[in-house]
Amino acid sequence: MTYRIEKDTMGEVKVPAHAYYGAQTQRSIDNFKIAQDINRMPKEIICAFAYLKHAAALTNNEAGVLPKKKAVLIGKVCKEILEGKLDDFFPLVVWQTGSGTQSNMNVNEVVAYRGHVLNGGKLEDKEKYLHPNDDVNKSQSSNDTFPTAMHIAAYKILIETTIPGIEKLRNTLDKKAKAYKKVVKIGRTHFMDATPLTLGQEFSGYVSQLDHGLKAIKNTLAHLSELALGGTAVGTGINTPPNYDVNVAKHIAKLTKLPFKTADNKFEALAAHDAIVEAHGALKTVAVSLMKIANDIRMLSSGPRSGIGEIFIPDNEPGSSIMPGKVNPTQCEALTMIAAQVMGNDVAINIGGSMGHFELNVFKPVMIYNFLHSARLIGDGCVSFNDKCAVGIEPIEANIKKHVENSLMLVTSLNTKIGYYKAAEIAQKAHKQGTTLKEMAVKLGYVTPEQFDEWVVPANMVGKI
Amino acid sequence: MTYRIEKDTMGEVKVPAHAYYGAQTQRSIDNFKIAQDINRMPKEIICAFAYLKHAAALTNNEAGVLPKKKAVLIGKVCKEILEGKLDDFFPLVVWQTGSGTQSNMNVNEVVAYRGHVLNGGKLEDKEKYLHPNDDVNKSQSSNDTFPTAMHIAAYKILIETTIPGIEKLRNTLDKKAKAYKKVVKIGRTHFMDATPLTLGQEFSGYVSQLDHGLKAIKNTLAHLSELALGGTAVGTGINTPPNYDVNVAKHIAKLTKLPFKTADNKFEALAAHDAIVEAHGALKTVAVSLMKIANDIRMLSSGPRSGIGEIFIPDNEPGSSIMPGKVNPTQCEALTMIAAQVMGNDVAINIGGSMGHFELNVFKPVMIYNFLHSARLIGDGCVSFNDKCAVGIEPIEANIKKHVENSLMLVTSLNTKIGYYKAAEIAQKAHKQGTTLKEMAVKLGYVTPEQFDEWVVPANMVGKI
Amino acid sequence: MTYRIEKDTMGEVKVPAHAYYGAQTQRSIDNFKIAQDINRMPKEIICAFAYLKHAAALTNNEAGVLPKKKAVLIGKVCKEILEGKLDDFFPLVVWQTGSGTQSNMNVNEVVAYRGHVLNGGKLEDKEKYLHPNDDVNKSQSSNDTFPTAMHIAAYKILIETTIPGIEKLRNTLDKKAKAYKKVVKIGRTHFMDATPLTLGQEFSGYVSQLDHGLKAIKNTLAHLSELALGGTAVGTGINTPPNYDVNVAKHIAKLTKLPFKTADNKFEALAAHDAIVEAHGALKTVAVSLMKIANDIRMLSSGPRSGIGEIFIPDNEPGSSIMPGKVNPTQCEALTMIAAQVMGNDVAINIGGSMGHFELNVFKPVMIYNFLHSARLIGDGCVSFNDKCAVGIEPIEANIKKHVENSLMLVTSLNTKIGYYKAAEIAQKAHKQGTTLKEMAVKLGYVTPEQFDEWVVPANMVGKI
Amino acid sequence: MTYRIEKDTMGEVKVPAHAYYGAQTQRSIDNFKIAQDINRMPKEIICAFAYLKHAAALTNNEAGVLPKKKAVLIGKVCKEILEGKLDDFFPLVVWQTGSGTQSNMNVNEVVAYRGHVLNGGKLEDKEKYLHPNDDVNKSQSSNDTFPTAMHIAAYKILIETTIPGIEKLRNTLDKKAKAYKKVVKIGRTHFMDATPLTLGQEFSGYVSQLDHGLKAIKNTLAHLSELALGGTAVGTGINTPPNYDVNVAKHIAKLTKLPFKTADNKFEALAAHDAIVEAHGALKTVAVSLMKIANDIRMLSSGPRSGIGEIFIPDNEPGSSIMPGKVNPTQCEALTMIAAQVMGNDVAINIGGSMGHFELNVFKPVMIYNFLHSARLIGDGCVSFNDKCAVGIEPIEANIKKHVENSLMLVTSLNTKIGYYKAAEIAQKAHKQGTTLKEMAVKLGYVTPEQFDEWVVPANMVGKI
Repeated sequence: MTYRIEKDTMGEVKVPAHAYYGAQTQRSIDNFKIAQDINRMPKEIICAFAYLKHAAALTNNEAGVLPKKKAVLIGKVCKEILEGKLDDFFPLVVWQTGSGTQSNMNVNEVVAYRGHVLNGGKLEDKEKYLHPNDDVNKSQSSNDTFPTAMHIAAYKILIETTIPGIEKLRNTLDKKAKAYKKVVKIGRTHFMDATPLTLGQEFSGYVSQLDHGLKAIKNTLAHLSELALGGTAVGTGINTPPNYDVNVAKHIAKLTKLPFKTADNKFEALAAHDAIVEAHGALKTVAVSLMKIANDIRMLSSGPRSGIGEIFIPDNEPGSSIMPGKVNPTQCEALTMIAAQVMGNDVAINIGGSMGHFELNVFKPVMIYNFLHSARLIGDGCVSFNDKCAVGIEPIEANIKKHVENSLMLVTSLNTKIGYYKAAEIAQKAHKQGTTLKEMAVKLGYVTPEQFDEWVVPANMVGKI
Repeated sequence: MTYRIEKDTMGEVKVPAHAYYGAQTQRSIDNFKIAQDINRMPKEIICAFAYLKHAAALTNNEAGVLPKKKAVLIGKVCKEILEGKLDDFFPLVVWQTGSGTQSNMNVNEVVAYRGHVLNGGKLEDKEKYLHPNDDVNKSQSSNDTFPTAMHIAAYKILIETTIPGIEKLRNTLDKKAKAYKKVVKIGRTHFMDATPLTLGQEFSGYVSQLDHGLKAIKNTLAHLSELALGGTAVGTGINTPPNYDVNVAKHIAKLTKLPFKTADNKFEALAAHDAIVEAHGALKTVAVSLMKIANDIRMLSSGPRSGIGEIFIPDNEPGSSIMPGKVNPTQCEALTMIAAQVMGNDVAINIGGSMGHFELNVFKPVMIYNFLHSARLIGDGCVSFNDKCAVGIEPIEANIKKHVENSLMLVTSLNTKIGYYKAAEIAQKAHKQGTTLKEMAVKLGYVTPEQFDEWVVPANMVGKI
Repeated sequence: MTYRIEKDTMGEVKVPAHAYYGAQTQRSIDNFKIAQDINRMPKEIICAFAYLKHAAALTNNEAGVLPKKKAVLIGKVCKEILEGKLDDFFPLVVWQTGSGTQSNMNVNEVVAYRGHVLNGGKLEDKEKYLHPNDDVNKSQSSNDTFPTAMHIAAYKILIETTIPGIEKLRNTLDKKAKAYKKVVKIGRTHFMDATPLTLGQEFSGYVSQLDHGLKAIKNTLAHLSELALGGTAVGTGINTPPNYDVNVAKHIAKLTKLPFKTADNKFEALAAHDAIVEAHGALKTVAVSLMKIANDIRMLSSGPRSGIGEIFIPDNEPGSSIMPGKVNPTQCEALTMIAAQVMGNDVAINIGGSMGHFELNVFKPVMIYNFLHSARLIGDGCVSFNDKCAVGIEPIEANIKKHVENSLMLVTSLNTKIGYYKAAEIAQKAHKQGTTLKEMAVKLGYVTPEQFDEWVVPANMVGKI
Repeated sequence: MTYRIEKDTMGEVKVPAHAYYGAQTQRSIDNFKIAQDINRMPKEIICAFAYLKHAAALTNNEAGVLPKKKAVLIGKVCKEILEGKLDDFFPLVVWQTGSGTQSNMNVNEVVAYRGHVLNGGKLEDKEKYLHPNDDVNKSQSSNDTFPTAMHIAAYKILIETTIPGIEKLRNTLDKKAKAYKKVVKIGRTHFMDATPLTLGQEFSGYVSQLDHGLKAIKNTLAHLSELALGGTAVGTGINTPPNYDVNVAKHIAKLTKLPFKTADNKFEALAAHDAIVEAHGALKTVAVSLMKIANDIRMLSSGPRSGIGEIFIPDNEPGSSIMPGKVNPTQCEALTMIAAQVMGNDVAINIGGSMGHFELNVFKPVMIYNFLHSARLIGDGCVSFNDKCAVGIEPIEANIKKHVENSLMLVTSLNTKIGYYKAAEIAQKAHKQGTTLKEMAVKLGYVTPEQFDEWVVPANMVGKI
């Protein structure tokens, strides 16, 4: 590879000749050889930086501190970044400075140098038309840009991936809830046979969980919509023009089409990332819901002959490399693994969030890395589970019927007729002697056969449907 | 001890002669010898049961399924429970049936037997005037009462203990933020000297964190206000009179003076406790904030001679059993330990919440135990930290002044005058040669002494205050 | 209540007249009003302090820095503490100074003042025969006594409660594994029918898990056996006589009959509690095992009519307040709730353990509180689960037989005879058409009926037993 | 792209014409569109599969169930996999079947088809010389191969990356401990000034932490050395030749040069992954240690003018995009972020580990993904921290001297001369009046100036060094 020399305030650095980045990016590559093949700074953060650098340039220009030509040039490169054209030049990893300074500088360098080239310059020119710090980073600090990028990336992924994914699954489950609202089946509590409900009712519980989860996520968007930009180094806004914070947030809102606004308190916005902690708290609540739902579905579909077997789920692939003909609830497994991951990510975020000190939290990259991971996994996972499993769920009516008719818990209907104690006696004796409830109820003399048939009707035990 | 014989559907059990509880409570004592000295079912749950049993009796009476006299009697015992008069008769532990069935039955038995005695009966009577299942538990199941008690207890403690505790601390910190809004001090990022801000600004960040935290908690109250009661065994409401769910929620709202209402979906309300998971997610967000705040305060007060020493905190007790005269930030330590506990409790709640199966989550006791623990710790912890530490915080002006004047980061003011690179050169050389910034700036010929004095003014670097 | 006046280095304090504790304990009661009714410092820590105060007195006497009479008196009070006679005088909570200083002083005060009374003095005497700091705490600091007490308490509870509890359960499961080693049953993977194994084999897996878990716990005892005592204030051992650290550890070993020794590095022993983190890592591994085992057992016993129903577990109590005759796997539920709690406690311990700063970790009380909680819950929980559930497990042979004979996965036997693809075809077609494997295998012409009967024999599919 | 048709037991699938993989891999690509760009199955798992497929082929050949030529061919492809030549053909993600079946089949397909090509065949041939199931997967199941691959990958990365990384850092810290063993400095407890120790002593605590951590990791290797292979579908070893399990483990040991052996109990080995839970418990213990060490180092190096400033750490990059000349403890930040991640990963692993059901744990991919992530991060992170930070640590003697000499806690030396209470009085009054200890001690008449100079000597307060 051929190299060129770039320099920063600490001296000269050899950089790949073709690379749009400069000295500070290269230093970070050299200094942080940690999981470089698997843990690049998420692309969502790079894109968020593109929005904010563009917005900052526009605001700086309007404030009279950056020439129009430079602002336009910065905007052009930001567009290229959003289009993915410059992906190769963002090689830094999550495990770097805790303020994300080096990723901010990576973006500053790429925008400056690519802008210089777009402006007709050459990478090997000593002086570039755009300066990474004095132009691209003007009126900014890593300390306010990185948290701004965190909020932009987090808000966007929730809106674009997570929420739509959950909604897609929610809607499918709702269709199933409605389609099977009259399919009476046995209930199970403590894994044990209980009084009946309908399959639709069972699924309506899942829908309600996801509805609450969606609401929980949406409740956290307000805090995420607050942007740190304008706080610069420590929250005071040093080196920014008047009203810069308000104006730059407006530009970001316009560019992203999302309702961002400047944070009321910039000191919190740099020193703490409670908005990320809070929003991820909602994500892990959804993960908890998904674990429940996916577990239920795989247990309901268990069998085919020696399990519960009350629903079919689609066969997507051969299930076993040794047991021929086996089909497994693989989408449930992917989704429950995702739920476990999100619950783990939550802890990493909590720890990072709790350890901000003085004017700056320096666990920013690990926090947003985990946040974006969870948001993506839930979004993608719900879509996959929806498309390859939920849409194909069908009741297995024969098994459902058999289970509900055998159930000893139908005796609960008799509580209000003969009292809890006598009803218990019927169920216990029927269980021990292996008879039906009706036989035992009549044998014990507590009801007549006619009364039994009138009082013990599964379909009457499921309430309003 | 003397005993009497009680019986349930499984047979006879020996019970302490004076105990208001019966066979099922005694079975649970015998069957769950797990940490009985330290992990009783929280008293908040017992009180919540008192509200709901009273409400159920009123509703049952209005629905015509329970005689007025019985309803009144039940209400009387519930009042005694709330007054703490029957505390000794709730000996069961958290580590019992996962549906909390035994605690429900414990309450049913105490209400029935104490009611019988209030009605002139004797504990040793074979037949009691009130029946634990058929009267006290009428139109109810453990499966809907326990989650109802969870929501009542959780909502109440948030309103009565947690939120007021946080608000108290928030208000004190806000007073400090205002009182010290002009005390210019050095900022610190990455634990390193940074540009200045005021002590009031620093504290305003804490206030903003707690304001957001309070909002996050309040956002979760709506979900907590939904009550499972009326769902009975599996969510279908079997064995309940018409409109029972709506009416019983109204009674609970009236008795507790809190805006409870019946849950739209009872299947979720029994099978999942996402409302608890979601609300605890807000509590752990506050724990994260408190860890940050308490850490800052102990580091700012560190010293007295070889630390940062920018604030005084009250001396509450001798700090060391060996080092005479030592004073330690003990309230910060209690609060940070609480934060660690809450973050741990969160994981226990997540795991419990994720493992509801079919129609019932059977991690109810462990979930509410951890929730109430966290809510209490945060509430009590904030009050203690407020009263014994925060109210007494004072700036140590001499140290604050010395630190800000020595700071090399004041050079940041020169960025917009001479550019980032020259400013960096000044700071680096001043650092290496141990000079002041001014000396070096002038020596390097980048500014005149007059310019330096005009441009580098800490008080001008803190923005709007 | 009547009071007397006690004083410490900060001045006078009113103390209940009859209390053996003094000024510093009272200050802590007043300063830390946090969950005082539920979170007292665990009694195991108080007892551990009794051992170490006694050991320190003996060592100090041998070193010539404490008169024999004082040493004997200290030993007497320590014995009373171990006998539980002074329990009322240890009212402090977990949420105090992070070094546990106040609990150390609480013990110092109780030993000094009770010793003074045993020596014929009165509580209201201004001067006491024993001085809390200069005699009882001689050659000690909170900073080395509290971590020593942590290790003593942790080691003891593991040896006395946790390990025996796990072993008891392990032995019962091992008996079941042996008793049912020939009971051929269907295997289940992904919740789906798989090739057969025996019930004994299934249980042998649980035994192996617990054996590995026991080994994992024992692997951590060496680190726990290292005592901080002798490090005093910061690990240097200031104010201790020669060889004090080695000798005091010997005395502790003798008094506790456990192999304690002095820590090689006292700086670690004060500033970090990795031994607690490491040992709790083993406890949470066991919690993970117990969750798996208890989940399996409740699912295997599910039904009685519409679940898996392959094993009986004992009926210990009526299962439902509304569904008569219902019996639930309540011991499984208690144990899985415990597992969730231990996994949560682990996180609290990790956070506390990670935040030691400089010469002292000040998350000591929260760490040992969670550790002892987990150790106790696992120990008690295993015994309860053993006595009330595991010992009574019995196979339900009829269901076991039915499930294994119906299984399509018996086709796996044919892989080595006719290849995986043809075997798969048989299983898939039998499943779709609802026939037996044999019918389909013969119909497809891949085997003769005789070959099928010879090749497909469940009992031959379970390997060596 | 051009395609060819491959088929499996479920039918035909279009596969990229050049791809060595087949129908089942393609199905998984299509079925699990979850984070495909960021969460590929870790390469360490693919390599582990290469070892085990090779070992299985050798063992099968020796047992007479696989022709030599096929075994050799399989071995050849496995070598190519280990050399990274076939990386492009392992596109599957973590979020798939929980047994890792699809990754097992991916390897089976690549080995079979690449082997077929090496043998002179073409990818488009209908019949291949090697069959993925019947040859490459012979005597195996996903259920025993995937956990075997987990243990191989986990053991290898610990030996090759994690342990050496920790040891490298441990050795550097040990050198520092020895180099600075006589540099007397102030101790700090509760962030407050305490009695002195030496810088070397402080660092020796870090060394001791890492030594214990290394021992903890090594204690878990025995469990990891146990291999599931030979258990096949459910642990019974169905469809394996005699002694296959023992022999295949020997081959794996030989190929990997690591002491693997067959697991005594295969039922555990498939149904639970406690070895992974246990070993990750040790990793998180090390993470806890690293958090402590990195926190200390960044606080000790804080300043340069308004912090503690007792050590220099290397300047690796410009620290701020806005504050010129700022240098930050960036390696400490990367390492503490890693610690947070590992503590989060631990929770994901615990949850996955706890939810194995019946004969198979189906959280295998998420467990090993997190394990390998942590092991890699700790290994890489320690090396980076070592090379770019620890090796360059130097004491800043001037500050160290100033801090120790100013300390009021030197008064502790006087405890044994004048008693704790008088010593406390000296320290408190010196603190309030801003005098030196000596001035106050003499003024109060407790010591003469000569006694003070003789008794209060920091270098005499640090014990044996």
